[in-house]
Amino acid sequence: AARAEALGVEHPACATLPARGCRHALVDRNENARLFECEQGIKDRFDRIVPTLQEIAALGRGSDFPGRAQDWARERLGFELPTAVLERAWVRGPDMGALYAQAVFSALAGAVARFGDRIREELAAGQGWDALLVDCGFHAMNVSACADGRLKGLFPYVLRIPAANLVRRSAFAGTLFDVEEDVRHWEHAELRRYREGFPTTADVPTRYLKVAVYHGSSLDPKHQGCAAHGSNERAATEAALERLYEFRRAIENAFCCGAGTDILLIGVDTDTDAIRVHVPDGNGDVSAYRYIDNAALYRQTLTLDADRARLAVYEAIRAASATEGWGKGEGEPHDGMRRLIATLLINNMSQIEYVGEYHGGWYGDMGHGERFVSVGDGFPEVQVRNIAYYARLDTVEEGAADLDVGVKIFRHLNVERGLPIPVALHYHFNEQVPGSRARMEDKIRRIAEGIQGRYAHLAKEGLLYLHGSVQDMAPGSALEEVALT
Amino acid sequence: AARAEALGVEHPACATLPARGCRHALVDRNENARLFECEQGIKDRFDRIVPTLQEIAALGRGSDFPGRAQDWARERLGFELPTAVLERAWVRGPDMGALYAQAVFSALAGAVARFGDRIREELAAGQGWDALLVDCGFHAMNVSACADGRLKGLFPYVLRIPAANLVRRSAFAGTLFDVEEDVRHWEHAELRRYREGFPTTADVPTRYLKVAVYHGSSLDPKHQGCAAHGSNERAATEAALERLYEFRRAIENAFCCGAGTDILLIGVDTDTDAIRVHVPDGNGDVSAYRYIDNAALYRQTLTLDADRARLAVYEAIRAASATEGWGKGEGEPHDGMRRLIATLLINNMSQIEYVGEYHGGWYGDMGHGERFVSVGDGFPEVQVRNIAYYARLDTVEEGAADLDVGVKIFRHLNVERGLPIPVALHYHFNEQVPGSRARMEDKIRRIAEGIQGRYAHLAKEGLLYLHGSVQDMAPGSALEEVALT
Ligand SMILES: [Zn+2]
Ligand SMILES: [Zn+2]
Ligand SMILES: [Zn+2]
Ligand SMILES: [Zn+2]
Repeated sequence: AARAEALGVEHPACATLPARGCRHALVDRNENARLFECEQGIKDRFDRIVPTLQEIAALGRGSDFPGRAQDWARERLGFELPTAVLERAWVRGPDMGALYAQAVFSALAGAVARFGDRIREELAAGQGWDALLVDCGFHAMNVSACADGRLKGLFPYVLRIPAANLVRRSAFAGTLFDVEEDVRHWEHAELRRYREGFPTTADVPTRYLKVAVYHGSSLDPKHQGCAAHGSNERAATEAALERLYEFRRAIENAFCCGAGTDILLIGVDTDTDAIRVHVPDGNGDVSAYRYIDNAALYRQTLTLDADRARLAVYEAIRAASATEGWGKGEGEPHDGMRRLIATLLINNMSQIEYVGEYHGGWYGDMGHGERFVSVGDGFPEVQVRNIAYYARLDTVEEGAADLDVGVKIFRHLNVERGLPIPVALHYHFNEQVPGSRARMEDKIRRIAEGIQGRYAHLAKEGLLYLHGSVQDMAPGSALEEVALT
Repeated sequence: AARAEALGVEHPACATLPARGCRHALVDRNENARLFECEQGIKDRFDRIVPTLQEIAALGRGSDFPGRAQDWARERLGFELPTAVLERAWVRGPDMGALYAQAVFSALAGAVARFGDRIREELAAGQGWDALLVDCGFHAMNVSACADGRLKGLFPYVLRIPAANLVRRSAFAGTLFDVEEDVRHWEHAELRRYREGFPTTADVPTRYLKVAVYHGSSLDPKHQGCAAHGSNERAATEAALERLYEFRRAIENAFCCGAGTDILLIGVDTDTDAIRVHVPDGNGDVSAYRYIDNAALYRQTLTLDADRARLAVYEAIRAASATEGWGKGEGEPHDGMRRLIATLLINNMSQIEYVGEYHGGWYGDMGHGERFVSVGDGFPEVQVRNIAYYARLDTVEEGAADLDVGVKIFRHLNVERGLPIPVALHYHFNEQVPGSRARMEDKIRRIAEGIQGRYAHLAKEGLLYLHGSVQDMAPGSALEEVALT
């Protein structure tokens, strides 16, 4: 918020910020309180590491160092540091880089264990979200966002979408998602409809929804936007939109008529978490110039009671559909799409108010502030803004561009301070598929080798630490470490 | 055949070989003649390269060298050599490695152009094969073999399976195919049944057939078997069988009841091309110890007329199903499986006789004799024994083991003679999928970079040459070169 004040900028959703927050009738304040506890609980684990290690560094190299350091760690961090590293400390002083990396991985494991329960709760909520999707005429929702750590809280925070069965999430630098992979997922979802009648039977004309999420920064658009597009918001928008159209055409061409896919484009302002929803027209087409700015909508509906505010949201969708000029489209989207958009806008109003209440309207960490690099299919338990830079990849070769961006961010965040880059490799396996676990372990070792090779200079200087783990697909399963050689 | 004579070995299918071949009533000799023309036509293109370049090397370095060399090349090879390389020759003599690699790629392009027509003919035959599969109760046949070049003629020669719509082919070192990828193909095939009723509608209880092909050498089993399994035929058999079971369980677990998959295991003797078919039992289970040796079956049925020989083939399947001891199973496979096995055995009898007639019963190139390394999804036009070591991969990272085996083979075949390793990268694109061509070109450049990085020492010494090309999926499309940097 400091920068906003320095710039004399008025908050787009609530003019009294940062002094005093606003209260919107559609906001779920209990959920906000719960989410803040969670954000604090997770971030604290990481943020206590550096001060604690600084204190440990000051303990000297006496023979009581290992014991005293371990006591400190237990007391301040809630976990132990690697004994072997502590016991070696008398020779050349403690290896703070190794201790730091190990502490980050322990904090991560602790957070996963602590919030595994939450995932089970979320799954119950997810059933409600699945039902909503089907009610809105969708049998699957596939969301691809940018890998940027500031979008790491996209689902539980920004959009308030729980871990639902019908929702698939992925992240790529610059939202440049993999069209071929999505075609396969489309097939997978479609086949389930035919074979299992899940979630709708194939004769019901429900649709597959592909969503792309780009981002920008309202406070510092030229520097704090999407790095993959040189902080050019227009470029980020157009790139995401182009992929959406490529995906739709790929399905239409491969499966012709009646292949029923909808596309939706969403932008996030990573300073306020307010979203922008690009309203599709009656043909399902999306325009960079036809959208609803949810910060403005929140502000406009602040004085209304819940019922009227809800009506105003639908009215905003109607008004957006009537956009003239560059953003002009052909009529309104179908009922279910309107209802889904309204739900997303209303959910996001809670998040706008969350950032108002707990972060003064604008995040203090306007830029990157990731705690580690997450490689693999992600930790569903730890989805909080700026907790991790997330690269969703199957090979270093294909994911090299995503990894390079992450390493570049951490050169600035960590290496410049003398700290190593902690990289957590993590994949889920399916206990029901024979050999799946062993294959995932092999995959993690292969990827670890690839990363060590690609950033050999960092690894050699002790500025890169890797940690591997697998987890069964069943929600709430324990994290199991994979030994890397 | 020389080695067989030296060893005093009798040919397992025809005792009078190599002096005189046998004539079996079920063999298609016209097709054999046509196939031999094709084998010669393709191999000749490659085998003229070294002698021609040796003559060119002897031309001296006079000012007329580029012209004379080019004339020779045109006359003897049917294509031109790169002018720039010839014109540089006066400085340090001609760069024979570069000329050799270019000539290999030109020979390959020539063979693809020449036999593109054959693919179109084959497609007509393929419709017949598709119909046979459906008649046998299969809606897809997915065959994975070893990447070994001696199996490169598996489809058109050893098994006589044309390029059919319902047949999918892949190759991996040691037949260690990718279970996850096959699950996706299973889904793809299944979805087509539901959405398009192709080739059968979903209510028809046809089955998906997964075939694994391993190989061994009857003349020198300890040295000329499958390199990926240390020439241990038992290990090669068990590994292929285990993957088959993993695939079947993966489908059953993911899609439960009625997921209808059949598995089939086939072994090839790369000296004689005679196959061994492991007959599934009534439950669809396969045993390493229950099989039909087609060389023996050919020999036993040599005196019979076509009708009786055909009956004898079915009798052999029945007898195999009655195997006692380790290979004991539970009854006979279903009718369609029996018919498919009989067809494969009869087809392979033609190949046994082909090797007898045109190669004296045993191939002269008993070991490796590949002309180039083929990386990508393969050249359907050029499927001839020992023409290429074939690595089917999407990333160097995942395919590293397959590539290493190929490079090891070519160190022996080429590098030891001072010749470079020619690697042809080739993928098909789908003109109907937007951006597919550009993505394939990017992929080829990425893989080329990966290969150059992995074998940097070879590349630096001019012992590794890469060539990239793409081709539209439509059969008979032209090969289009992709410039590599
Ligand atoms: Zn699937
Ligand atoms: Zn971004
Ligand atoms: Zn597919
Ligand atoms: Zn092999």
